[in-house]
This record gives sequence, structure tokens and C-alpha cells, in this order.
Amino acid sequence: MAQKTGTKETAESMARQQRDISVSEFFLKNRHLLGFDSPRKAIMTTVKEAVDNALDACEEAGQLPEIAVELRQVANGRFVVSVQDNGPGIVRTQIPKVFAKLLYGSKFHRLRMSRGQQGIGISAAGMYGQLTTGAATVILSKTKKSTPAHRQEVQIDTRANKPAVLRNEQVDWRPEFPPEQEDGDPVCYSHGTQVAIEMAAQYVRGRLSVDEYLKQCAVANPHLRLHFKVTLLKKDKATGALQPEEGTWQTYDRAVKTLPPPVEAIQPHPHGVELGLLMQMLKDSRARTLKGALHEDFSRVSVRVAQDICDRAELNPKANPTRVAHREIEALYTAIQDTKLMRPPLDCLAPIGEDQILAGLKKEFPADFYTAVTRSPEVYRGNPFLVEVGVACAKPGENPDLGAEDSVRVMRFANRAPLLYMSGACAMTDAMQAVNWKTYGLAQPRGSLPIGPMAFFLHIASVWVPFTSESKEAIAHYPEILKEMTFALQELGRRLVVYLGRRKRAAEANRKRHYMEMYIPHLALGLQDILALSDKQKKIVETDLSQMLERTHLDV
Amino acid sequence: MAQKTGTKETAESMARQQRDISVSEFFLKNRHLLGFDSPRKAIMTTVKEAVDNALDACEEAGQLPEIAVELRQVANGRFVVSVQDNGPGIVRTQIPKVFAKLLYGSKFHRLRMSRGQQGIGISAAGMYGQLTTGAATVILSKTKKSTPAHRQEVQIDTRANKPAVLRNEQVDWRPEFPPEQEDGDPVCYSHGTQVAIEMAAQYVRGRLSVDEYLKQCAVANPHLRLHFKVTLLKKDKATGALQPEEGTWQTYDRAVKTLPPPVEAIQPHPHGVELGLLMQMLKDSRARTLKGALHEDFSRVSVRVAQDICDRAELNPKANPTRVAHREIEALYTAIQDTKLMRPPLDCLAPIGEDQILAGLKKEFPADFYTAVTRSPEVYRGNPFLVEVGVACAKPGENPDLGAEDSVRVMRFANRAPLLYMSGACAMTDAMQAVNWKTYGLAQPRGSLPIGPMAFFLHIASVWVPFTSESKEAIAHYPEILKEMTFALQELGRRLVVYLGRRKRAAEANRKRHYMEMYIPHLALGLQDILALSDKQKKIVETDLSQMLERTHLDV
Repeated sequence: MAQKTGTKETAESMARQQRDISVSEFFLKNRHLLGFDSPRKAIMTTVKEAVDNALDACEEAGQLPEIAVELRQVANGRFVVSVQDNGPGIVRTQIPKVFAKLLYGSKFHRLRMSRGQQGIGISAAGMYGQLTTGAATVILSKTKKSTPAHRQEVQIDTRANKPAVLRNEQVDWRPEFPPEQEDGDPVCYSHGTQVAIEMAAQYVRGRLSVDEYLKQCAVANPHLRLHFKVTLLKKDKATGALQPEEGTWQTYDRAVKTLPPPVEAIQPHPHGVELGLLMQMLKDSRARTLKGALHEDFSRVSVRVAQDICDRAELNPKANPTRVAHREIEALYTAIQDTKLMRPPLDCLAPIGEDQILAGLKKEFPADFYTAVTRSPEVYRGNPFLVEVGVACAKPGENPDLGAEDSVRVMRFANRAPLLYMSGACAMTDAMQAVNWKTYGLAQPRGSLPIGPMAFFLHIASVWVPFTSESKEAIAHYPEILKEMTFALQELGRRLVVYLGRRKRAAEANRKRHYMEMYIPHLALGLQDILALSDKQKKIVETDLSQMLERTHLDV
Repeated sequence: MAQKTGTKETAESMARQQRDISVSEFFLKNRHLLGFDSPRKAIMTTVKEAVDNALDACEEAGQLPEIAVELRQVANGRFVVSVQDNGPGIVRTQIPKVFAKLLYGSKFHRLRMSRGQQGIGISAAGMYGQLTTGAATVILSKTKKSTPAHRQEVQIDTRANKPAVLRNEQVDWRPEFPPEQEDGDPVCYSHGTQVAIEMAAQYVRGRLSVDEYLKQCAVANPHLRLHFKVTLLKKDKATGALQPEEGTWQTYDRAVKTLPPPVEAIQPHPHGVELGLLMQMLKDSRARTLKGALHEDFSRVSVRVAQDICDRAELNPKANPTRVAHREIEALYTAIQDTKLMRPPLDCLAPIGEDQILAGLKKEFPADFYTAVTRSPEVYRGNPFLVEVGVACAKPGENPDLGAEDSVRVMRFANRAPLLYMSGACAMTDAMQAVNWKTYGLAQPRGSLPIGPMAFFLHIASVWVPFTSESKEAIAHYPEILKEMTFALQELGRRLVVYLGRRKRAAEANRKRHYMEMYIPHLALGLQDILALSDKQKKIVETDLSQMLERTHLDV
């Protein structure tokens, strides 16, 4: 690349330098946008993308998910990340594109609640592996008992954003997972996928780690059986050489044996469609008439409402939708805005549910009080969404994970996938901080999270989650989302204040009782003196007084 | 789009739903990633992208830039944003791609300091206009006196990320700007470009506005002559109809008449190149030998050093670089890391410079004390960068824009382009907050910006600025950048503490002097009594004493 520099450019010389930038090149250079800033974050992002895909695939296929995640250190600062699922498998011809092409997938062009939505994640992980180690992504996949398994090694040709298949072979393979009982047989399936990527990576435990991600994943997906193993290189004391120290499988078992209810894909709601998109949709419509297009391509537009809209816009309902003129579409757009429509269908969302949130919290956070709130669905920019929240509140000192003097712990989830990084940029965090927790009996530094031995669980479910970046780590600040989140948290607050009030009164009564208990012997002694009671009678008085105190306390 | 839903998917049914996602579709759905979240932000982002491009083009062509920005309201919530420059113009065949194709441009594939670097911005603005109003982007361009001007109307085909040319005609046009003197002739050029985009927009003044962007642009680009006009619709009192109320041109004149020194594009530095990229570069190399490739495609690799690297990696320096095996490239990579190399060339950066920062600050922020620091270039991930900072410090109450009780004002710039949004996510803001300003005599709430009547100017210049998002609003947290920024701010702090100390001592002396002045008449009266002085003599004594005090004060 010899560069002409220091000279004055002309329109012609500049034109010669113009060229296409492939989307792979773009994200390779800007890999921090995808969550691959550092070796430590890269390993977490890779696990996240692979697990998200595995869970989506299992749920879409109606399969109770079982997933195994393995991190295997192969050199200093280098790991093979491997994720295996019991999903439906991937058709052989699709494997290269799914794993080695950015912006490819089935989830972008639909409005349906799922973890993945961009068609970037897992290919980006492969691209990062390729960039840092030169290695290929290795995929094993089997779609059913009767078809052989396939093994492929793929890389991205970043210049063209196209997959390059380095190896493609039939193999004898099926997914195998650690046994259910200690001495049992491995659990086997006749279908599933395994992806392995070698990459520059760093494995660290803590709040932003693979461990934490998987733990939260188990909390939000109680129908998931999840296995995790880490194998690190250790220095052999005798020879000084690095030797792998094989880890053991750690398993999160299922809390429930049923899948979340299946969710429907929906059509866009007319009130959430902008003018330019309306033009595009009419141009692409397969309906024969304008009226038909309005009815078929949008949600909540009955035949009658479609006729109404055409009348209002003074357009012929039998016009060919692909040939409506610009000015007419503007009239149509205005007519749609002026037409009352039912809100988008809301059965496209599957909340985790209050019971399962409580179950998840109880499993992971021993505490004294739990409560959860699932709100009704709402709509932002035409997209249905719902918010649900929960809290586990420990007594001070009860749970070493939840310090009484620390900020409360906040776990964020979007469509059941945990969000670990970028909490400061997230609308959910902002809603937490904006609630006036002092009203609900919690200490709260101004504009910060409240203080206390508590863990909060915040979840947004939507057919299209508005993330602030491609790395899907924080939710954008739509006012509708902030409002719903705030209402949900305030409801939690009202329940918390009742519990905290009860706890406070109990503590107060306890204090008083303890205080009075100290005096009972003296009181009895005084009575004995005045009334000339026997020692036995004095003992009875003491017991009576103690019992009275006991009853009083119980009435609090 | 009939959707098969509620049914259980198989690998085959899922494969049928997989498809390409065009980069335009992706960013259309995620337009908040590009800075088009809201009508208010969209108008600012559009001006920013157009002005950045205009300035880059002028500077590359060696042309002193003159730019006119016009916002014209055409309906409620709808504006035409128009930006005209006196740059080199754009070759006719390139216009559609430059303005209606994402990821296309001349700046991505080079390492050279410029404002634009992604090839997204201006096409994204056009796409947003198209989405919200259905309108096309209108471009006028003239490349030289002898060639006719062209006018084109273009839109993006978002499905394919390709331009669609709606109109393409020769016109009689040349760029014209407001005159230099009040009654003078308009300033005309024989080349330049004008782009106009109609979009859903909201015009609001304030800290995050077009006004503020352009003002800061003028501060950081003193060689720019910049014009700005806003025409809003007002209700006619008689008829009640909306009528345009033509605005007047507001001009920021040039402070200097020379361009910043031209900057060179550089080759990547070997220590900043990752293994995967090294493989790609060797594969793409035009050199005939490995040694030649190392020398020609990288910076700071002399022929001797190239030989050294080959020796160390035990590779044949005469090997064909496109045919080096994977394992050998790993050896090469390790050899490069182990080789001492000169740091990247640093003349590829053009700082604004301390003098010009001071000039800019003085023009916009009347204050009592100014200082600026330009640091030497440093390197992050192989990319040269430098940091410069400045401060204007007013006396309390001196400048109504700079409140004595408020947080200091912070202006952030990257390659001379102002950054307005997302200051909370920016490494420069974090560096400001992390400095212990109490050491330098400023009040500072913990973890926040310091308090005082001050405006800070922070600038990073680099051949590749690491932004945290495509909307280019905040700098990523590279430790090298944070460190440099901190050093620069600490140097400012050391100068500030000297100034503030002097001001404090002066105020103290002033107070004492005032105190003593009050006693001079009494003292003179006493002396008159004791020494029986005449009134004239008493007057002389008073004057002498006052002068003594004056001298003492001056010595402080």
C-alpha cells in the first residue's frame, strides 16, 4: 500500500481512493463495538453469544435445553472456548454462513422475542479468534439420528465478509453431557451443535466473568440444564513445564421441566412504522391491493380498518400497493396516524413470571424476604415489551454476598439473557437510581443505587430489544421503558417498605422486651418483699411476667 | 410476510429462514447507534457529519475552508439541513456512493488523521431523512471552473445497501457565501459541494445543539470561515398560516489564514498488528519477498531490521510473502514482538497547538487567565496519538457563562471535531474526574468534575481515534490515552494553582491595603496634632502614606 501523501488532493485523486468497506473489516477494526475490547471481555462475550444461540435454537425447536460450556487453556493468554447444545443442529450448507459471515441470520427480519437478533455475535467471536490466533472456528453438528454428523472448519474472508470453508467432513459424533447421577451414564442426544473457537483470552472470576454470566443465565432460565468446566495450565513443579490441570464439571440443574410458552412472531404495528419504512413495505408487499397490504402486512389492521384508512387518505383501496405515489403514501401515513388502532398483540411475549423469578432468586441468594412483579405488556415505537423485577432482601450479616453497607446488587436481563457490562449506560440502571428509595425505607446517596443487603433482578422482554450498542450490554433510554421499569420498581418498593417496617417494629419490640426482661427479676424481688411471697411464688411471678411479655411481642 | 409460528422448528425449517442482513437494514433498525435516536439529535448529527466531511475535503485539497450551514424549517417537525463548502468537489460518478451507501469511503483503509474515518456518517443522515420523510438527498457539486456543476438526487436501496439515483443533471451552479464586508459582493468559488437533506428534526438551542457544535467547531478550527442561518416557520398573526421567517447569516471569521500543516498517512506499526492481521497483510502484500513485505508494508522496519526478524523467526527472507505457512507466521509474529523497533513516526499528527487553543479560548470565553498544554505524541495499539488541553479561568462573576458555583465546563474534541453527546462514557471526561483537583486549589465533589468559573478544552488527535460507538461521541478507555490526558491535565493544574495562589495573595493584600487606607486619615490627623502640621503638610503625609501602601502592594 504505497500512499500518495503530503500532496494536494483533487476531486479525481480522491475519487481513486474511494472504496467499499466490508462490514467485517469495519467491525474487525472496531471490535470493541462488539464486546471484544480485551481478552477478558472477549471470553465472556464469546460464551454469551454461543449460549444465546443455543438457547434460542432449543426453544424454537421445542427442546428442553442442555448446554455444556468448556474453557480450555492451550497457552499463555490463549483459550479454546467450546459450547455444546442439544438443539436441532444446523443444516450443513448453512454452517459456514452462520459461523463466518457478519449480518446473517433468521432473527433480524422478524419481530419475535429471542436472545439473538442481529446476526453478528457468533461470527464476530470467530473473527476475533481468527484475528488473535489465526485459528479457524470448528463446528460439529448433527440434525437427526438418521443423518450423519458434520464437522467443519470455517474462517471469515474479512475483505468480502464471506465464509471460507477450510475443512468439511462427515464424522461419527453426537452430543454427550455429564451424567445426571454421580455414577450414571452420560446424557446423549441424537442432535445438537458444538462450536469451538481458539482465541486470545484471559479467564478471571468475579462480577464480569463467565462464571457470573452462567450463574445469572441459570437464574433467568430455570428450564436450562447447564454444565461448565475450566481447564487451566499449571506449572509442573518438577519439570517447570506448563501442564493442563483438567477441571471438573459444575452443573446447574433444571428447576422446572417445561419450556417457556412458545412465542409468536408479529407484524409491525402501523403506529410504529415511519414514513420511509411504510414506503418500503408497500413496495415489497405481496398483496394485490392497497387495502390487502394494510391488512396483511401490519398487525391490528382489520379489513374494515384498512378500508377506513384508505377512505381517510382518499386513496383507491384497490390500487396496486407497489405503485402508490410518494405524495399518496404521505397521505396514507397521516391517515394511519389519525386512525385509532388496537394496541399490538401482546401474546408475543413470554415473561419469566413472578414464581420463577422468586425460585431463581431463592436458589442463588439466601435471604429473608423475596418478592417479584411482572408488569403488563406495553409498547415503544410499535414494539411490544414488558418489564419484570424481583428482589431478595437479606437481614444484615445474613448473606456474605450481600453487604449491609454496600450498594444493592443489580442483575439485568434482556429476553432472559444476562447483561453484565455497561451498567452505567443502561436505562434499567437509570430507573433504579431515579426511584426515590428513601420513601421505601432504604438509604440512598443522591442519584445512586440504594444501600442494603439486597439483590435486584430486572428483566425486559421484547420482540425487539433496543440495545445501545452491537455488543448488547445496555438498554436504550426509551421513555416508555423507563416509565414501566420505574412503576415496577416502585411496586417492589411498596412491598419492601411493608417488610422493612415489620422487621423494624420486630427489632424495636425485641429491644424493649430485652430491656424489660432485665427488670423482671428485680420486679419479682420487689413484689416478694412487699407481698411477702415465697420463693416459689416469686418464680411464678417471674414466669408470668415473661409470658406476658412474650404475648405482647407476638401481637406486634 | 406470512410467518410460520407457534410450530416447532427443525434444522431445515430454520435454514429456510436464514438470510443476509444488509448493513443499511441493520443500521436503519438500529439508527440510535449512529446518533439518530431523536429528531433533536438527528439534526446535530447531520450537521456534524456534513461539516466533518467538508473540512476533511478542504484540508486534503489544500483549500482554506469556507462552510455555510443552513437549517430551513419546511413543516412542523421537519427541516431541510443544507451544508455547502468550497472544497474540491466530488467526481460525478462517485456522488451516489459517497452519499447513499453505508461503509464506503477513502478514509477507512488508511492510517491518517482526519475527522471522518468510517464511511458511514453522511449516508446515514440521508438514510434517516429518507426514513422519516421519504425525501432524497440532493447534492450539488462542481470540481473546477472548466467542468459543469452536477446536481443529483439519490436515495439508499436499503435492501442492497446500494445507491439509487433519482435525478442526475448538469446545472449552472457555483458555491456562493455571504460577503466579507457588510456591503461587499458574495464570496464565490469555482469548486465546492452542497448537500441538502430533508428530515424529521427539532431545532433547540443549548449545550447539545447545532449552535454549540458550530461554535466549538470554530474554536478548534481557527482557519475556518463558517456561516450559519436558521429559518423557522412562524404563525402569521393575520391569517394564522405558517410562514417562513428568514433568518440572517451569522459568521465565525477566520482567526488564522493558514491551513494546519498537512499530515501523512502511515503504515501500521508492527507492534500494533495482531496475528490475524499479519496473516492478512502478508497475503495481500505486493512485495516479492518476505523481507520486502516487512520493509514496505510496515512502518519502522528498515531492510536490516526486516532481515533480523526473518533470522530470528528462522524464515527465508526471500520467501514469497503470500505463501508463508500458518505456523511460520506465528514464528514471525513472535519474532516481531521480540524485536526492538523505533516508535511509530509521529509527524503524521497535526496538533492544534498551544497558541491556537489559547486564541480560540480567548475569543469565546472572556476570562482572567488562560493556559494550554500540547503533549508529545504517544502510541496505543500501534497508533500514534497526542493529547492537548487548555483552560480559561474567569474571576468569580466575571463571565456569566462560567458560574463560580457550577461544575467547570468541558469541551471535548477528536481530530478537531467537537464531541457533544455521551460525555459520561468518554475517557477524556473520566480523566478530568480522576485528577485530584483539590491539590490544585479547586473544589471537587468526590469522583466529579471540579467546581469553578472555568472552561476546559480537551483534544485528542490520532490516525485512528478509538470511538465507543459509530456515532463518534466518546473516546474508548485505552490506558495509554487516559495516562496522557491525566498528565496533560495535571500540568494545567500546576499552572492553575500558581495563578490561583497569586490571585488569592493579591486579594489578601488588597483586603489589608483597604484596611490600612481606612486608617491613613486618622494617622495623618494624629500626626498633625502631635507635630502641629499645616493642613497642606497633612495632605502631603496622607499622599505619602498612600503611595507607600501602593508600592508595598505592587511588590506582592
